[in-house]
Amino acid sequence: MTKTELIALCDAARASLPSLLSADSRDRILAALPAALIAAQDKILAANDIDLTRAREKGISAAMLDRLTLTQSRIADIAASIDEVRALPDPIRCEYEDTRPNGMHITRHRVPLGVIAMVYEARPNVTVDASVLCLKSGNAVILRGGSEAIETNRAIVAVLRDALSPFGARDAVSLIEDTDRESVNILLTLRGHVDLVIPRGGAGLIRNVVDNARVPVIETGAGNCHVYVHSSADISMAVNIIINAKTQRPSVCNAAETLLCDAAIAERFLPVAAAALREKNVELRADSAVMKYIPDATPATDDDFAREYNDYILAVGVVDNVEQAVRHINKYGTRHSEAIVAEDSAAAEYFLTHVDAAALYHNASTRFTDGGVFGMGAEIGISTQKLHVRGPFAMEALTTTQYRVYGNGQVR
Amino acid sequence: MTKTELIALCDAARASLPSLLSADSRDRILAALPAALIAAQDKILAANDIDLTRAREKGISAAMLDRLTLTQSRIADIAASIDEVRALPDPIRCEYEDTRPNGMHITRHRVPLGVIAMVYEARPNVTVDASVLCLKSGNAVILRGGSEAIETNRAIVAVLRDALSPFGARDAVSLIEDTDRESVNILLTLRGHVDLVIPRGGAGLIRNVVDNARVPVIETGAGNCHVYVHSSADISMAVNIIINAKTQRPSVCNAAETLLCDAAIAERFLPVAAAALREKNVELRADSAVMKYIPDATPATDDDFAREYNDYILAVGVVDNVEQAVRHINKYGTRHSEAIVAEDSAAAEYFLTHVDAAALYHNASTRFTDGGVFGMGAEIGISTQKLHVRGPFAMEALTTTQYRVYGNGQVR
Repeated sequence: MTKTELIALCDAARASLPSLLSADSRDRILAALPAALIAAQDKILAANDIDLTRAREKGISAAMLDRLTLTQSRIADIAASIDEVRALPDPIRCEYEDTRPNGMHITRHRVPLGVIAMVYEARPNVTVDASVLCLKSGNAVILRGGSEAIETNRAIVAVLRDALSPFGARDAVSLIEDTDRESVNILLTLRGHVDLVIPRGGAGLIRNVVDNARVPVIETGAGNCHVYVHSSADISMAVNIIINAKTQRPSVCNAAETLLCDAAIAERFLPVAAAALREKNVELRADSAVMKYIPDATPATDDDFAREYNDYILAVGVVDNVEQAVRHINKYGTRHSEAIVAEDSAAAEYFLTHVDAAALYHNASTRFTDGGVFGMGAEIGISTQKLHVRGPFAMEALTTTQYRVYGNGQVR
Repeated sequence: MTKTELIALCDAARASLPSLLSADSRDRILAALPAALIAAQDKILAANDIDLTRAREKGISAAMLDRLTLTQSRIADIAASIDEVRALPDPIRCEYEDTRPNGMHITRHRVPLGVIAMVYEARPNVTVDASVLCLKSGNAVILRGGSEAIETNRAIVAVLRDALSPFGARDAVSLIEDTDRESVNILLTLRGHVDLVIPRGGAGLIRNVVDNARVPVIETGAGNCHVYVHSSADISMAVNIIINAKTQRPSVCNAAETLLCDAAIAERFLPVAAAALREKNVELRADSAVMKYIPDATPATDDDFAREYNDYILAVGVVDNVEQAVRHINKYGTRHSEAIVAEDSAAAEYFLTHVDAAALYHNASTRFTDGGVFGMGAEIGISTQKLHVRGPFAMEALTTTQYRVYGNGQVR
């Protein structure tokens, strides 16, 4: 799409915002969507079939194919999840009020951000999830999904827009219908037209958005997470935690990518850990100190410690102490999730107060960084930036504040 | 400074952060600063004299000269303000905790952002204020003040750094000592080295930072604020409010720059308002509809409605109704402070729910957008962006969150 077309898309989205002003309208809109999706499931599944056929021809991975695939039952799940979001507490509300000495009544409201762009990979469920979270919080959304899902996304968005039409909210959900990367790059420059871009997906996608955006971004996801085993660690706990952090779901951002351990515990810990990791088919890339204890590991380069593998590969290094571990993590980490295994609580406290990351763990797996686990409900993503929101975030991050002041003629 | 030098400055600043970890250290550091400044006041005043002499030679405005000028009594005030900040509640704290069903104890802490850069104009008091607010919140600060204040800033920062040295915190405050704009532009690109840039000053300075920053920014200040007089307005209240909003302090960001009024009230309101504004020496720039009622006003161009005058100049326009006023403000405004004067509460509610700005007023002056007035204490600035913080903001905006999770071996 051209810049002019993209601005028109954003302006139409913004013009739809008044239709989402009242909680009652938003809830009536959300109530209409599940039935509309189910009624149109044949069309959606037919479109999905086209995407799946093309994807198979391109030879994409089984995991990606699975994420791209819709079925009647998956559409039913997606529809049910809309009802769950509709039932959540309204994020648009007055959160503070005060009457000042001069009689002015000052209120602070949470209000929608406005026009939110979602840039994501080929996951049709995100098309609906993102739309619904934006609508519930009074925002319009511009969707840009992965090219492999384009037919499915077109079909879904057509259904959503038709369902929104009777409420005057048709343009509150729209899709960038081409699959040209240039469209995204233009969108990322539209200051004043786009209030927020949220990238969701792999490191490359996120990096492209963060590097090129001239509009506000919530950076999500990339996680080069570490498990550090202190000399005081309980060895069987440490083995359990690294096995879980690395292998329970290696493709996700809160999986561990590097194992560090103190030199003082290396001889006792590393051979046991290596055996357990190999039983799970994890390839080990070891620094020279580690090679002494795991001689058949692959020698690690400096670059191996900077990578997010999202795979059954783990970099392993030895450090002198917690201070050196913290320096390593602050140098190579992506500020996501970092764990220390230690019985010594002073070492743990040092780690928890000196590592610069969204979530820090003492004697628990990095895999817990998740909105559901943290008790915050429908998670949109995990922010690795410091401004606005950090760590797992839910719908409130799609709002901002506005002061509304009521006077009777006050001047200063 | 070169990129390498600036990165070294940032890295030294970051290396000083552990010295600011405990509330006790931070308070002891702040307690040492007032006496240090007063003890060095002769040096600081001598440096300030050099700046003032150069500034007079360059012929800068009286207002700028005044802001640049230090005296013994101003230094005493600055020193006293350090004690006030020291006495504020500690912004670094645990703000949430919960024990999950699996026994993990999840806490969320407010933690320092890290390295904060302040880019501001020739106001030596900001050099101290910004340093103190950053130190109190556990952050290191890199200062870049206006070139007219360079000698004063060098003297002040030398004093602060000497006073910080015994605490191992010397590099927690540093100054970009050259006055080359290129240094700022390089600083703005140092992702991963700078956690936040706050620009404070005129529209040009802020625009340069926002346009060039590749690091996180809190955009402050620029205010093209409107007073809209609805057909139901109390005319004398409307006159009071526009006089106050325009003339009580025209140089500030929450002063009004445009007056809009409904066509239905124009004949009764505009001549009275014009007379009162002219008595205060305000130049009026009027659209064609206004010219009927104020025939000797200067005709306004479209551009006049987009400008922040910060002067005794006011653009004046007529609109048909509140909907048109809202469209005008959302088109030309800078999302700062906007007021409606109306007895009709439905019109006011429409305005307050449809204008996109940080602070909205019903029957009160735009001049109240201020941290002190809003009861939040030492204000750092007024954010006109939507992410992180919006409207007047205090020290909490210099912090982010961090989850710290305590387990006893939990895995997922």
